[in-house]
Amino acid sequence: MTNTSEIGAQKKVTVIGAGAIGLSWTALFLANGLSVTINDPRPDIEKTASEGLDQISATLKALGYEITDLKGDLSFEADLEAAVKDADIIQENAPESIEFKQGLYEKLEGFIKPSALVLSSSSSIPATVFSQKMKNAERVLIGHPFNPPHLIPLVEIVPGERTSKEAVAEAIKFYELIGKSPILIEKEMSGFVANRLQAAIMQESVFLVKEGVVSMENLDKIVSSSIGLRWAAAGPFKTFTLGGGPGGLPHFMTHLGPTLERIWAVLGTAKFDESTTALLTEQVNGCYGKIPYEDLEKERDAQQLAILKAFDK
Amino acid sequence: MTNTSEIGAQKKVTVIGAGAIGLSWTALFLANGLSVTINDPRPDIEKTASEGLDQISATLKALGYEITDLKGDLSFEADLEAAVKDADIIQENAPESIEFKQGLYEKLEGFIKPSALVLSSSSSIPATVFSQKMKNAERVLIGHPFNPPHLIPLVEIVPGERTSKEAVAEAIKFYELIGKSPILIEKEMSGFVANRLQAAIMQESVFLVKEGVVSMENLDKIVSSSIGLRWAAAGPFKTFTLGGGPGGLPHFMTHLGPTLERIWAVLGTAKFDESTTALLTEQVNGCYGKIPYEDLEKERDAQQLAILKAFDK
Repeated sequence: MTNTSEIGAQKKVTVIGAGAIGLSWTALFLANGLSVTINDPRPDIEKTASEGLDQISATLKALGYEITDLKGDLSFEADLEAAVKDADIIQENAPESIEFKQGLYEKLEGFIKPSALVLSSSSSIPATVFSQKMKNAERVLIGHPFNPPHLIPLVEIVPGERTSKEAVAEAIKFYELIGKSPILIEKEMSGFVANRLQAAIMQESVFLVKEGVVSMENLDKIVSSSIGLRWAAAGPFKTFTLGGGPGGLPHFMTHLGPTLERIWAVLGTAKFDESTTALLTEQVNGCYGKIPYEDLEKERDAQQLAILKAFDK
Repeated sequence: MTNTSEIGAQKKVTVIGAGAIGLSWTALFLANGLSVTINDPRPDIEKTASEGLDQISATLKALGYEITDLKGDLSFEADLEAAVKDADIIQENAPESIEFKQGLYEKLEGFIKPSALVLSSSSSIPATVFSQKMKNAERVLIGHPFNPPHLIPLVEIVPGERTSKEAVAEAIKFYELIGKSPILIEKEMSGFVANRLQAAIMQESVFLVKEGVVSMENLDKIVSSSIGLRWAAAGPFKTFTLGGGPGGLPHFMTHLGPTLERIWAVLGTAKFDESTTALLTEQVNGCYGKIPYEDLEKERDAQQLAILKAFDK
């Protein structure tokens, strides 16, 4: 899956902030033959990053990457200016704080090459907001991954108001070359798309468990054995296009639209108030809470890999 | 996957109504070695059913069923009394009309054996409602499949107020023996669980497309390359338990609960009004509308099969 020649082996990437997301990006960039500099202020970052990369390495191999020395092209630079000044691409994974990010981007503008492409993993603060203190924000935009980025294909591409079309096109090409599925979001909206859809299903899920309609564990089984399976193969609109038979989506809207609207009218709301939190904690302690975290994670990643391989993604 | 000995080869099943859902059930029952009588008033039912079963047969083989003569144990009986009087199990797929179903169940009570288990594919009318005119509704409940039942594992088990625990247990056992994943819904609620969750994500999807945040085709790609993949492996609660790290769901609720609540507060609403219907029709004509229905269906089923095989389900 490595495609060094097209990406250009000369490309230098700087990863700002190497928590779970930043480290996963680092692994993926390295596996694709890019040279990576990590900029992270933590004193133990070299040790933490090295251990994390060893763990991710197995998954990357299972995904088909040929890896001999994942850390060969990796370096660390705690000084921001030194870390970014030669970078062609920057993937920023700083804390989700408006003030922090605005200060960071203001500083970045003084340090980076004019040709550098600056991509942010921001999951909620839009580029228009965090780039506000920059004079020129043409080459700054969001490349928001779905966790973990080395495994899940989606990257939401969300340009800010001042982002140039060229920068958007370059970002899409870059993510495609490293095997991701970048999708353009055309309007900045809180939560972008994937997290809003996830929130919508989660609200109804919490409501149904709270109402005693179904247990948490059974709700998960329902999703995995029906709509989850469906949506891994075809998203909601494609599913309903097929649900309309040969008449497609127009037929679906005419004949089943009213049924859907009736359910929309009675969907629940939820809050993580004291009683809800207590109920969910009690239920999770009775099921997933009994399984060691590492085992749960391994099981999920194995199934995820199995699906990706089945699709040859 | 056939398990005739446990189900009992002597078991007689009657399928009432052999549209898409009823026919898919019929195929699955036959593949599992049961003898099936179809009760459907359409004059061309034998021809339609025969053609439909031939089509489904290929998918069942791909799922691992050894099929030599799928239609060997199939018969047709247009008279309701004659069709159900010897049945051990009845799977009803009549139109979703309260009046029609109530009349049907009232008649059924006079015709069936007292030991017969009566299962309804009803997707919206609860058992308590459609069994209202029966004197005894102990052995009547909903076994609601996700379309198509021969392929998608989920069956929602929804007892009515008068359904006995024994009947619920028998229904669960029956569906398990024919390879399904029956899940108990503990309270009758409009749309049960899967369709409510599906409606929740669909409402937000329609909202986002209408707002111009993302195109229909790209929204589908987002789902299939992120949350769909996730949920095929682990439902929403398991996903957020993992999202909480070693602290699990309680940690998630404390740290990311507020972010989720902020998105819940701004989720959209939708209606299939004239402008929405026109926009969705225009977009679907530009993507899936250009592909023949059969091709879309084949592609989806192939991917579905690939996932099920990857999971060894």
